[in-house]
Formats: sequence, C-alpha cells, structure tokens
Amino acid sequence: MQILVVGMGLIGGSICKSIKAVTEHTVYGCDVRQDVLEQALEDGSIDGTGTMEDGAYDMIIVCLHQRIAISLIQKALPRIKAGTILVDACGLKGKMVRDLTYRCQKADVFYVGTHPMAGREKSGYAASIPNLFQGANLIVTPVEGTQEHALQTVIGLAKEIGFGQIIQATPMWHDNMIAYTSQLAHVVSSSYVKDFCMDDALSFSGGSFQDMTRVATMDETMWAALFLDNRDNLLYHLDLLIENLTDYRDALKQRDEERLQYLIAEGRQIQEENVRKRQQLKEEKGEA
Amino acid sequence: MQILVVGMGLIGGSICKSIKAVTEHTVYGCDVRQDVLEQALEDGSIDGTGTMEDGAYDMIIVCLHQRIAISLIQKALPRIKAGTILVDACGLKGKMVRDLTYRCQKADVFYVGTHPMAGREKSGYAASIPNLFQGANLIVTPVEGTQEHALQTVIGLAKEIGFGQIIQATPMWHDNMIAYTSQLAHVVSSSYVKDFCMDDALSFSGGSFQDMTRVATMDETMWAALFLDNRDNLLYHLDLLIENLTDYRDALKQRDEERLQYLIAEGRQIQEENVRKRQQLKEEKGEA
Repeated sequence: MQILVVGMGLIGGSICKSIKAVTEHTVYGCDVRQDVLEQALEDGSIDGTGTMEDGAYDMIIVCLHQRIAISLIQKALPRIKAGTILVDACGLKGKMVRDLTYRCQKADVFYVGTHPMAGREKSGYAASIPNLFQGANLIVTPVEGTQEHALQTVIGLAKEIGFGQIIQATPMWHDNMIAYTSQLAHVVSSSYVKDFCMDDALSFSGGSFQDMTRVATMDETMWAALFLDNRDNLLYHLDLLIENLTDYRDALKQRDEERLQYLIAEGRQIQEENVRKRQQLKEEKGEA
Repeated sequence: MQILVVGMGLIGGSICKSIKAVTEHTVYGCDVRQDVLEQALEDGSIDGTGTMEDGAYDMIIVCLHQRIAISLIQKALPRIKAGTILVDACGLKGKMVRDLTYRCQKADVFYVGTHPMAGREKSGYAASIPNLFQGANLIVTPVEGTQEHALQTVIGLAKEIGFGQIIQATPMWHDNMIAYTSQLAHVVSSSYVKDFCMDDALSFSGGSFQDMTRVATMDETMWAALFLDNRDNLLYHLDLLIENLTDYRDALKQRDEERLQYLIAEGRQIQEENVRKRQQLKEEKGEA
C-alpha cells in the first residue's frame, strides 16, 4: 500500500517507523514542521513527503489532536481520492466517528476510527520508536456505515506492526472507558504530586509511589482539550473516586477500624477478580 | 552471625532466603505456624528453629505487624541475651522506636529500627523470594540511644543481602513520608477500583490504569491497623489529595480550559523536577 501519515508526533512517527521496520508498504509523511520531515527522511522513517490533497494514497492515517484533525479532514475531504481508507488515531471517538463517518460516506472515502492504546511519558517525533505498539491494544470503533473491507485492512496493518488485541467498541462506550481507565488516572497522578512532602519523597518512594506519579507529566494544551472534550464522562468517574476516597477519610477520622477493614476488603475483592480475569484472558491467548 | 528471624511471612521469609543465598550466617526461624517452619526447613531457607527466649543469637530480626511485635518483644526482653542486636522491620516507626529504644537500653539489648521498602502483591511465606530486596531502599531510624556498632552491623547485613540505598530518617518523619508515598497510594488504588465500569475495564486498560489499581489487593486486617496507627499523617495527605482532585473537578464542571491547563502544567512541572532529581541521584550512584 501507499500510506500517508499526517502528524509526525509520538504516535504518527512510531507508526511510520514500525511500518518501515516490518512491512513492505511505502510511507509518506505530512507535518507542519519541516525539520521533523527532514529528520524523518534522514532516519528512513518515511519514503517521502505528501499531503492529504495530492490524491495518491491507499490509506491516510491522521495522528493529530482531535480538534485539529476534524477541521483538517473536513477541508481536505473534497480532494481525497475516492476509495481511500481514512484512519484517525485520536484518543476520543464519540464526536469524531459520528461526524467523519457521515462526511466520508458522501465523499466515497472509507473512514475507520481507531485508538492505539500506547504512549510514553515523552511526546513528539523525537520520542517515536518502531516498537511502540508491540503487544498494545488497538481499539477500533466501527459503526453503521463503516465499510467492512476497510476495517479489515486497518486491522491487518495493525497486526503487521505488532498490535496485540484488537478490540471493537462503540464510540460512546470507548469514550466512557477512556475517561475511567486513562483520563482519570492522569488526573489522579497530577493531583498526587501536589503535596508539600513531594520534595522529600524521593528516598522513600517505592513502587506504588512511582506508579501513582508516573503519568503526571502531561502536555497541558493537549490534555486540557481531551478532558473537556470528554467532560461528562470524566466528571462522572472523578466524582465517584472522590466519594470513595471520602469513605476512607471518614472511617479514618472516626477511627472506625471495622469500617476501614470493610473498605479495604471490598477493594481487594474487586481487584482480585480483575487480576483473575486478566490471567484468564492471557491463558486464552496462550500467553501464560 | 547466629540470626533469628521472628515471623516468617513475605518479609521474614525473604530475609531468611536472602541470607542463606548470599551470606555465611546461620539463620533460625520462629513462627506460630508449624507448617511454615517445616516448609522453610525443607526449602533450606533456615538452618533450624528457635525463639527469642532461648538466648542464643547475635541478631534477632522481628518481622511481625507492629501491634504484635511490640507486645511480643516486651514479653521476651527479660530473657534476651545482653548484647543481642534486636531489629524490627515494621512499616511504622514513631511509636515503636521510641518505646523499644528505651526498654532495650535498660535490658542491654541493642535495638535498631528499620523499614525495608520492598513488597509484592502477595503475602505470606509462600510468596517470599531470595531477591526481594535487590536494589530496594532500606530506611533506618536511629535515635539518641541507638548504639552505633549495632546500627553499622545492621547496615552491613542489609548491603550483603542486596539492599541499594540505606536512608536514615527520624521515626516521626519516616511515618509522615510513609503516609504520603505508600499508604495514600494504597488508599487511592483501593478507591480507584470501586467504579461501575471496573468489570469492563480489562480490554481498555493501558499502563496508567494498571499502575493505579496494582496495589488494591491489601490484606484488610494488616492495612486497617497500619492506617489507624498512622492516622493523623494519612488524614493530612488524604485531605490534600481530595482537595487537589476537587480543583480538577471544579475546573471541569465550569468548563474552565485555562484553569485546567494551569492545573495540568503545575503537576507536570512538579513531576519533571521529581524525575530530574531521581535521574541525578542515579547518576551520582553511577547507575546512569
């Protein structure tokens, strides 16, 4: 295939590098930053440069922030070749998939929404690596109007570049789960580090502290937009977490040991169930 | 040395196994469970069994929950041989160290308080492993009245069995930092899993979700006691975290993007500083 990757940041750059590393496809890069394109050419991460409008690709993969992605695709759509598979890798899907499935259908372009569940603490092309997706989950969000052949082509490429499980979800369900499993974790991490003892925590920090603080280094422009674009879902889970923390707080305040034991046991049982299920999943996949 | 380890759970068992694996010391085990002692003998984790009262050791290491440890040591103290080094590995030090330093001095026993910063999600002798302490931090809490030679002997043994950094802290400061870096992390993890979407989170769970939920499998009897024995410190940090989370909540509720960006940037800067310091520490130790 002739593949164009639009947006050569951590995700886009890693897609280019992984395609070049393990497939025979030809990859073109598109980015507003000329120095990034030059670096990518020098690295051999891309075979050339291009734009969505030049009409020369079997697949276009858009790796931009949601807000920019939607408006750029809208603008380019009239000039994208009919039959092109258009993929996006945005972290939210509700608004995006609804909007683009409708528009692309009218333009005879085959749109597939995806969310690669992979990342690093660093961002930008310089942080991109060819094995970022090794064993990672890919969420795909087909809806009514998604063309089956396009979906299977995207899944095939994903498997080629190393993705592990491919999970189908509705766009709305995806956004709700992302609020809980990813966005809330980032809010917690960012809140956790704002403690007067943070400066002295270094020598005391065991594994659990490092787990809590690892993802606090968010890019504020990108994440504030992601949080607001998924506001209702995130608010729901954040409120629930604050409530659960407050249960602990009250039991402690009241020196209620029995209640504390109950709260801890409750969490233990839920997590044990979770660990059991994860183990089962691994065994089914023949990994254990 | 002739060493007695009292309490053959995860920590005690791992101390026995690590001493046997890499030193020439003789290790005796003491536990209320006969089957654990038999297993340990069969495994070669100990050379024999003993009790604090039989007066035959150079060093006694007590690996029991704080409440049990204090009362057992008080009872045994009159029969512990003068000159014995008595070490405890309890997760809280404020009350413990004050109490035992005073009592042991009067009995000519040399007490040293320690806290090995190592653990696993599982507990009990069956979970113990010889390399649990490899590269882990050990906190030691010497106070006025701690004998220097005893302290150095304990540090020497700790280095032999693989501990990385040895950190000195006052008992009170230790307990405050433990509330923040460990206990709070456990409360968060236990609260995080109590979400209606937990059952479906499996396929969506990336690294940050797993980080958040990993330590939710606490033993409720042990941890409720630890939380209450360190109540004021934990309450302080928990209140602060709830406040910081509420800042996010309010900004989201009000759709205040600028405020959200500020909150995220604040967390990012603190964590970047933290990562920088950790890197620097590694470089100083010649690891980087």
